[in-house]
Amino acid sequence: MSQDVFIIGADMLKFGRFPDRTVPDLGAEAALLALRDAGLGIGDIDAFYCGNLVEAMEMVGQRILHHIGQTGIPVVNVANACATGATALREGLMAIKSGMHDVVLCVGVEKLPRGLMGGGAQPSPQLEGLFGSTSMPSVFAQVGQEYARNHGATFEQFAKVSVKNHHHSTMNPKAMYRIETPLEMVMQAEMISWPNTKLMCSVNVDGAAAAVLASEKTTRRLGLMGQAVRIRGSALASDPWSPRNQTMPDFNTVTRLAAARAYEMAGLGPDDIDLVELHDCFATAELVHYENLSLCGEGEAGRMIDEGEAALGGRIPVNVSGGLLSKGHPLSATGIANVYEVVTHLRGQAGARQVEGARIGLTHVVGAGHAGAAAGVHILEKA
Amino acid sequence: MSQDVFIIGADMLKFGRFPDRTVPDLGAEAALLALRDAGLGIGDIDAFYCGNLVEAMEMVGQRILHHIGQTGIPVVNVANACATGATALREGLMAIKSGMHDVVLCVGVEKLPRGLMGGGAQPSPQLEGLFGSTSMPSVFAQVGQEYARNHGATFEQFAKVSVKNHHHSTMNPKAMYRIETPLEMVMQAEMISWPNTKLMCSVNVDGAAAAVLASEKTTRRLGLMGQAVRIRGSALASDPWSPRNQTMPDFNTVTRLAAARAYEMAGLGPDDIDLVELHDCFATAELVHYENLSLCGEGEAGRMIDEGEAALGGRIPVNVSGGLLSKGHPLSATGIANVYEVVTHLRGQAGARQVEGARIGLTHVVGAGHAGAAAGVHILEKA
Repeated sequence: MSQDVFIIGADMLKFGRFPDRTVPDLGAEAALLALRDAGLGIGDIDAFYCGNLVEAMEMVGQRILHHIGQTGIPVVNVANACATGATALREGLMAIKSGMHDVVLCVGVEKLPRGLMGGGAQPSPQLEGLFGSTSMPSVFAQVGQEYARNHGATFEQFAKVSVKNHHHSTMNPKAMYRIETPLEMVMQAEMISWPNTKLMCSVNVDGAAAAVLASEKTTRRLGLMGQAVRIRGSALASDPWSPRNQTMPDFNTVTRLAAARAYEMAGLGPDDIDLVELHDCFATAELVHYENLSLCGEGEAGRMIDEGEAALGGRIPVNVSGGLLSKGHPLSATGIANVYEVVTHLRGQAGARQVEGARIGLTHVVGAGHAGAAAGVHILEKA
Repeated sequence: MSQDVFIIGADMLKFGRFPDRTVPDLGAEAALLALRDAGLGIGDIDAFYCGNLVEAMEMVGQRILHHIGQTGIPVVNVANACATGATALREGLMAIKSGMHDVVLCVGVEKLPRGLMGGGAQPSPQLEGLFGSTSMPSVFAQVGQEYARNHGATFEQFAKVSVKNHHHSTMNPKAMYRIETPLEMVMQAEMISWPNTKLMCSVNVDGAAAAVLASEKTTRRLGLMGQAVRIRGSALASDPWSPRNQTMPDFNTVTRLAAARAYEMAGLGPDDIDLVELHDCFATAELVHYENLSLCGEGEAGRMIDEGEAALGGRIPVNVSGGLLSKGHPLSATGIANVYEVVTHLRGQAGARQVEGARIGLTHVVGAGHAGAAAGVHILEKA
């Protein structure tokens, strides 16, 4: 039967803006960092999965190898909206489980124009191709309004998500922003689309992240079991039919589907999870994903943020990296950057933001483009 | 260990031009045709791999499911230049071998602007994003000139490739063109880039092809072993470093690498192959790929075409579908359309163009964009 797969190296660039660098250049640096973390060179890699959106048809994976070594390995370029990075990782996992490859490199990389993710105040012609006519700020505003209508969540509760994640990011040297944003500052920032102010929206940044995966046999042979993280659950879902997505992407149903599959594959439940990196592309999104990922009961997300349960030191810390809201959201890089964050905690190397005693973590991304949606959930465990 | 994987259904649209239809619409029709061939519905599918280039970041796979049924299955959108379809198929293979999925749908689909593939007489702004500044007619002209210089191949020999493939296509109801092109007609056609005349260049067409893959257990349970085709070898290669690809894509080395891997995985050699569908994007390409795929010895490709060895009824029929030159070349669809062709022969259903007694076939695609290259080779066997 198929075998366990381990993450034996992971790293990411500090997210930011790199106007003078190319997509392959950024991806190459992340790849080299992850390889160094594993103590390997590109010659040790059997297959390469590369996730990128804006240059999706332009052989980004191959061009990364032009920077770090053309070894002739299979390169697969994948694109799946904001689930692109998670998709690359999951394909790498299956390549090893299939027995056809043994050591696999997965990279997510993106360079974005300035402005708000997926339209909004400064719509970007470059991203219009990705998101079509969908204005993500409007969609996630409605997501929040719907939650508020059903469960009474307040503007203040949504704003607290952003306060929390910005606070977390002050402890993360890889985050784009590292500033405290007090509640009043978040609530008084420019209103983008109620209830999300500008400080409650992720911003377009450039970034890259990479992970090296290996079979159990090779992980042991390399003597890397000490730093290895087992992929316990890996799920990808496309948008199932729902009444909601007749009018706009339904991020809830697709997330719930992916989460259910990942928990089932892992044989674990929400109570087993020590930390979560979830897709807080807007503050409203984080709150609804508490429920979508079963981190709290129906209607309890507002209470969960009020009582600090999702903060570092709380019951189940969420986005201790700073999340998309403050670490930044370079679309295709996000799904591997959140894996890097969880891996760092499981290895006990997260410094000031370390979740004490973390043994199991969950990562989540969800995205949509042209009305098609994808969600990816991974459950990772200290080997 | 990992298990055998079978193609239990395959089909394609007749290649052509469909100005009034969308990419997902074409992909959906191919998917439904392949599902019907397997006697299955979309509800039987566990995972979906979709290959498309021109809308690579626009969730083509998910949008196909919007046409034929949103079941929430994992959808992976891949892009790998002209190896995109083969990449989708190979990922589907690994998804099953991994044990994580059991029945997988693979689709390749493309809609192209009119004109010559990859630039040339009428450069297309839409395809410039894919091929960059590379003019494929020029590249493949040089490929032919180099072969002629090394091995004395003649203009007439290159032209005979096109005569052969056009002749084959008169027997293929799925081909874009179904006309005989006598040698004089090919040689006297407009010269695009020596030695390839207009009739020695594949043309941009629209098309879609699909295959349904399943594990051995499920193939047996469904009672489909009678029509099943085993994937014996599956290889993907990226461009290894070579002196040649400092100046332009090196389609030879990357093809040889993929072929060597596929033969090794299959435990078979060129002598075991009954028919070949190879990447004749230009007439010059077919001749050099005879050698790259070890179908003949060094310098023997000219003799091979002269003596009719690659024609239907010959020693090893090549491109009995009509090939890219006459069946057409809708980039991402090509890698699955050539699998459909081989499957049709292995099942003894190829009608007038049937390769008698065919039991094992080989498919090959190779492409490049932005200087990154990819080649895919599959070896298929009657179950």
